[in-house]
Amino acid sequence: MSYGRTFELWREAAGDNWRAYTDHAFVRGVGDGSLPKAAFVHYLTQDYVFLFHFSRAWALAITKAGSVEEMRLCAATVNALINDEIALHIEVCADAGISEEELFSVEERPENLAYTRYVLEAGYSGDFLDLMAALAPCVFGYGEIGATLKETHGATPYKDWIDTYSGDNYQSVCFEIGALIDQAVADRLGSNPVESPSWASLCQHFDMATRLEIGFWDMGLRP
Amino acid sequence: MSYGRTFELWREAAGDNWRAYTDHAFVRGVGDGSLPKAAFVHYLTQDYVFLFHFSRAWALAITKAGSVEEMRLCAATVNALINDEIALHIEVCADAGISEEELFSVEERPENLAYTRYVLEAGYSGDFLDLMAALAPCVFGYGEIGATLKETHGATPYKDWIDTYSGDNYQSVCFEIGALIDQAVADRLGSNPVESPSWASLCQHFDMATRLEIGFWDMGLRP
Amino acid sequence: MSYGRTFELWREAAGDNWRAYTDHAFVRGVGDGSLPKAAFVHYLTQDYVFLFHFSRAWALAITKAGSVEEMRLCAATVNALINDEIALHIEVCADAGISEEELFSVEERPENLAYTRYVLEAGYSGDFLDLMAALAPCVFGYGEIGATLKETHGATPYKDWIDTYSGDNYQSVCFEIGALIDQAVADRLGSNPVESPSWASLCQHFDMATRLEIGFWDMGLRP
Amino acid sequence: MSYGRTFELWREAAGDNWRAYTDHAFVRGVGDGSLPKAAFVHYLTQDYVFLFHFSRAWALAITKAGSVEEMRLCAATVNALINDEIALHIEVCADAGISEEELFSVEERPENLAYTRYVLEAGYSGDFLDLMAALAPCVFGYGEIGATLKETHGATPYKDWIDTYSGDNYQSVCFEIGALIDQAVADRLGSNPVESPSWASLCQHFDMATRLEIGFWDMGLRP
Repeated sequence: MSYGRTFELWREAAGDNWRAYTDHAFVRGVGDGSLPKAAFVHYLTQDYVFLFHFSRAWALAITKAGSVEEMRLCAATVNALINDEIALHIEVCADAGISEEELFSVEERPENLAYTRYVLEAGYSGDFLDLMAALAPCVFGYGEIGATLKETHGATPYKDWIDTYSGDNYQSVCFEIGALIDQAVADRLGSNPVESPSWASLCQHFDMATRLEIGFWDMGLRP
Repeated sequence: MSYGRTFELWREAAGDNWRAYTDHAFVRGVGDGSLPKAAFVHYLTQDYVFLFHFSRAWALAITKAGSVEEMRLCAATVNALINDEIALHIEVCADAGISEEELFSVEERPENLAYTRYVLEAGYSGDFLDLMAALAPCVFGYGEIGATLKETHGATPYKDWIDTYSGDNYQSVCFEIGALIDQAVADRLGSNPVESPSWASLCQHFDMATRLEIGFWDMGLRP
Repeated sequence: MSYGRTFELWREAAGDNWRAYTDHAFVRGVGDGSLPKAAFVHYLTQDYVFLFHFSRAWALAITKAGSVEEMRLCAATVNALINDEIALHIEVCADAGISEEELFSVEERPENLAYTRYVLEAGYSGDFLDLMAALAPCVFGYGEIGATLKETHGATPYKDWIDTYSGDNYQSVCFEIGALIDQAVADRLGSNPVESPSWASLCQHFDMATRLEIGFWDMGLRP
Repeated sequence: MSYGRTFELWREAAGDNWRAYTDHAFVRGVGDGSLPKAAFVHYLTQDYVFLFHFSRAWALAITKAGSVEEMRLCAATVNALINDEIALHIEVCADAGISEEELFSVEERPENLAYTRYVLEAGYSGDFLDLMAALAPCVFGYGEIGATLKETHGATPYKDWIDTYSGDNYQSVCFEIGALIDQAVADRLGSNPVESPSWASLCQHFDMATRLEIGFWDMGLRP
């Protein structure tokens, strides 16, 4: 998938790490149905905590935005995360027999904490683009994984999950955020951003967040 | 009006400053129609810039929230500000002959800048409650002014403005935010918050933001 | 004076505002001794509050630094501000009959608050360069004013103040910070920074902080 | 060791995690000399990266300070970290055959990154006390470990390390920071801080940072 020029460049720079993330054993287990249910449920409960902090990071992007347009799309993302995605997690977990109360009291794993605090800190200490580069791997990676699994999945109990991230709704979000990032990069680094000395640090944020995604899947396999 | 127990206490602590803000000559001019149109339009254009930064401050509150409930209400406020209030300003200014382009390029007055940067910095350097105390005077003051002018206004060209802030929609927002703040105070300072050593600094934030509102009205009278 | 290439470019972009700041009536009154003592003492007490928040902004620069070298110089600046400059203010105020206690309880004027909160917020919401551009006018302006007054001053009771900012110690700080900023700009925007789309916003921060310096001098003349 | 009343309470609340940190296999290996040199050198290079970010977090504490006294001690800590501790690491690593260049390019391990970003984010999103609670386990834990190993160590090549943290210099820092924290807690939460609803979240920050210290030692054993 291509969600924009900047994404393509960052993904390319992340190289093997990107493949290790999007073609992780956890992902393949979701696609062919071999992932144990306990691992999936464990992942979902950790992802619930993740979404809380990830929403906070998207809210920080509103604060760091440079225009009403940037604010608007970041605010729409915060709302989708808080009102749709977190609600979906509560629902799916309820189906899996996990009450909302249990969900609220789940203990955050170090791999989970490392990821969200890295993203938030990159945003607080850096600027809007630093934050975008750290947020991008989660947004676009799930888009790519969803689109791929939609084509390749076998008989799997995780079809709902695949439908969510391959669906038009989520895919549109990816394209919109891809366009937002392309515009934000053009506004701040110009038409040839790879020549900017700041480019390397953006690639580093994208790469580090990709590696932290790999760590998150690894953790998912260890309920 | 009472938008909650915390608001009442903060308002009382701000004393004469609160009255100087909510019963300002600018406000009275809106109510009796004596405010020159040039002053009102000047105020609206500055308020447009204000809303941009005020929305950023409410987004920061999402980042600093301690629960999904706090996030949810702060996110709803950000959306109301970005999607309704900013849009309303663009519309009202268009009616007054100010194009969106002019609005985008209006020069921020020092009294305007002082206010929003104070609020944002209080939030960045402090915690969720510090930010709430600095955000509160604008939210509740406009609610109170709207409700008062609704009862007292004469023949005035600014009836739409009065209707907006006295309307059920805006008044509901005030009650919801008042309840959010009461709960946030209880969660952090307990049932007797005025006994907490932190209480004084919250009152200071509320009082300072109130004084900066007075400065904003003063500026409004000097187009 | 030239404290570096970046400073020269920012100063040029600020145009008349820079002159209005560095050749302000307050400054001329310091040089020819015509400034009323009450105004000078009022300025000093406000400057004490200013230094507290300005030190906090330089500390934020350490947090936002990209290398140990950047951290080191910013930390040296914080120390000079806290240990030397604030101490000097306490001493000079004591000579003027203002106790440390009075100094601690001085009420911050809006023009003072506007300036430091603007700088801090620019740093929190932006990156290291945004913060440097907002910090620069105070550092370099006082260096320039000191150097100019050293050559031009008449019989004035404010010679100590002139000696402080024209002295080797303060001038060295200006050159070091000028070099730090030149390097920071090169590291982030490359060898032709004026071509970067980010350049305009750096000039805006420098210009706004310059205008807030003018407001500070204006306030100084109104004890 | 007791570095103050607040530390005692936080340490007690962290329970077994505190013991798992201060009596970790890595620590015992330092004391009895059984720790492989490769592990020690690996730890030192990661600790160099750690100190960079830890210094940034102490600088953030200056920005979030509520008084000149708090600023002063936090600034002294930043200086000790940047000028002494980082320099010491460069020196010790040089003795171990690691050039400054290698040190600069060491890849940050996830366990290292998780810790410093957690502390920084706790500071950015919370207030001064949240930051202190997250900073405390490193400061006081090394003080306690140094003091304990001084009494119990055998023939070990790591005696210099033990001398550093058990030495008067470092122990004084611990007592000063302990007093700073006691005062900061009294100023904000009053004389009975454990009754404050905020107390639990401070204990959580201390506990989480303690667990991240355990993760850091674990990582140290895996060069």
